[in-house]
Amino acid sequence: MGQIHGSAAIATRQARLRARLEEAELPFFLVANPVNIFYLTGFRGSAGAALFGIAGEAILWVDPRYTLQAREEARGVEIIGVRQRPLDAAGEWAAKQRCREAGFEESYLTFGGERDLKRRCSGVSFKPTGGLVEELRSVKDAGEIECIRRAARVTAEAFYDVRPLLKPGTRESDLAAEIEYRMRRRGAEAAAFETIVASGPRTAWPHARASSKLLKKSELVILDVGGIVRGYAADMTRTVYLGKPGRRLSRLYSVVQDAQAQGVAAAREGVRAGNVDRAARRALGRRGLARYFTHSTGHGVGLEIHERPRVGRGESQRLEAGCVITVEPGVYIEGLGGIRIEDTILVGSDGPEVLTTASKDDWIIS
Amino acid sequence: MGQIHGSAAIATRQARLRARLEEAELPFFLVANPVNIFYLTGFRGSAGAALFGIAGEAILWVDPRYTLQAREEARGVEIIGVRQRPLDAAGEWAAKQRCREAGFEESYLTFGGERDLKRRCSGVSFKPTGGLVEELRSVKDAGEIECIRRAARVTAEAFYDVRPLLKPGTRESDLAAEIEYRMRRRGAEAAAFETIVASGPRTAWPHARASSKLLKKSELVILDVGGIVRGYAADMTRTVYLGKPGRRLSRLYSVVQDAQAQGVAAAREGVRAGNVDRAARRALGRRGLARYFTHSTGHGVGLEIHERPRVGRGESQRLEAGCVITVEPGVYIEGLGGIRIEDTILVGSDGPEVLTTASKDDWIIS
Repeated sequence: MGQIHGSAAIATRQARLRARLEEAELPFFLVANPVNIFYLTGFRGSAGAALFGIAGEAILWVDPRYTLQAREEARGVEIIGVRQRPLDAAGEWAAKQRCREAGFEESYLTFGGERDLKRRCSGVSFKPTGGLVEELRSVKDAGEIECIRRAARVTAEAFYDVRPLLKPGTRESDLAAEIEYRMRRRGAEAAAFETIVASGPRTAWPHARASSKLLKKSELVILDVGGIVRGYAADMTRTVYLGKPGRRLSRLYSVVQDAQAQGVAAAREGVRAGNVDRAARRALGRRGLARYFTHSTGHGVGLEIHERPRVGRGESQRLEAGCVITVEPGVYIEGLGGIRIEDTILVGSDGPEVLTTASKDDWIIS
Repeated sequence: MGQIHGSAAIATRQARLRARLEEAELPFFLVANPVNIFYLTGFRGSAGAALFGIAGEAILWVDPRYTLQAREEARGVEIIGVRQRPLDAAGEWAAKQRCREAGFEESYLTFGGERDLKRRCSGVSFKPTGGLVEELRSVKDAGEIECIRRAARVTAEAFYDVRPLLKPGTRESDLAAEIEYRMRRRGAEAAAFETIVASGPRTAWPHARASSKLLKKSELVILDVGGIVRGYAADMTRTVYLGKPGRRLSRLYSVVQDAQAQGVAAAREGVRAGNVDRAARRALGRRGLARYFTHSTGHGVGLEIHERPRVGRGESQRLEAGCVITVEPGVYIEGLGGIRIEDTILVGSDGPEVLTTASKDDWIIS
């Protein structure tokens, strides 16, 4: 694949990073997380190391498997091919340049990795930094939003493609295989995560894997799925019922649907992420269902399926225009089953925009 | 999904771990890597923490999303559901029990994660340990080998399924989608990694992603793919030529094929892993091609697509019966293209067994 992001977008990101480094008084910053390297350079290999300096330094080290690919994909960095581990090469470069201080990603580099780096480059003081690039990534630019919009669309379209399989006798794992395949055929590069298909009693497991179980009449089915387009993920969950649901389930579904709508409505510029969680949780609480909602309301989504901002209880980060999050309340009742509804949402300056294009009303398949 | 590994296999693994802890004089060991948790307990969630003690302690902490699943899947551990982060709960348990020392996974826990754990549980001395469980995992038991054998088989079968698509006009990304789909339909749970499809000049990138490029006549095509069965991966690469290859390419292919066979033949019990690399590298070197072989000869494969033993230059770890590795030499020549051939191999007590069932001779598609 050629260039993923334009040179202008890459230059803007690197400039934003440099501004952060200046604020943090960090002369250099080592990047080892491939997702962050992709974001800052356009290079999409699974291994490499990059270094950015406030004086304009921007270097990418890659091993021989990736030199050609880096030359094709990377923008705004000098590329150095090395036979040693790229992070070692980056650290040694920093030591040779007598960098007194260099930040590193404390939530990516392992305990052992940091120790080895420190040993190898004894002249440099390595400073742990948390979420420096991740924070930049939490506000998407127009190109990124376009990718997520497309990812959300192919995910919803694939859901409609497999709707004929939402019937008794279909194997959960076959349904997962089919929807992933349909996403690919519609232009997704891959599934963003292992598709969750849970039916009947298994719907009470919020994160069930697709199993060899067959769908049966008079069962709930949860399908949690998302595609990747040009590196960017979307995330969607729909719950359907095969047959004619009783009053209790119908009520439950409409309460979850209302909670989800309340969460979406709360996802506005300037609002704390925790308020989105609170809005959804309160809607469930008013019907006495809050205790069955055992996870967070959502999460940021982009180059990773779970990224900033967190959308859980008490999260104080304020949403900005350009944040993309999921809103996905659910209730899970052992013996009865589970219902979850999830959309991918863009926080826009004119209010929240639901990027997931699949219907939530049409949940009864009889 | 129900039980993945039997109680007996789990008990054996936990006993082997305890023996290692005694050798290392570590009274307790904290496990945070989900792959290691799966190996030691059978619980296959994406989050959790486990603690094992030499006096027989075996506890698994999971968050509310996973309590039902853990009760169903886990063997040989007490399960504790917690609302806080499972690793925090495990650390606090250790602190309350006045564990003086507990090992942790230095190659999994991040720098920040270790710091937070230490702050939270000030009474415990946390000791970095490298590859304790990973070393156990490098020798597979009969059940694990059976899973990998099946994964290798469905991968090869899917390759034959998509052979009709190996023709001019097929899009690389469609070929990737089709083979992943066919693996799933044949019983794989998922693709073990993003399928590599590279054609024409892109074959000179050892790790190219499948792109929107169409296959063309008189081009090489590299397909690197693997399925997962019950958690266990296989890994296979085949290179084909669409048309009638010239003398240079034909010679190149046979040299790579010979190098691959030399590598496989060297993969015997008691031999150092580095010798497998050397055997393949020498075969290429005899034809003056060693400098075009820019990566390691192989890697262990199992619950992760890359695991121990490493199979690269100078690796001193000795292969044991039950090790499963890949052997995958390749040559990559800018302007001409690349050829790689890879099988998944079981190191048996009677010699190496090739688990990948697809032909390597049948590479010309005209």
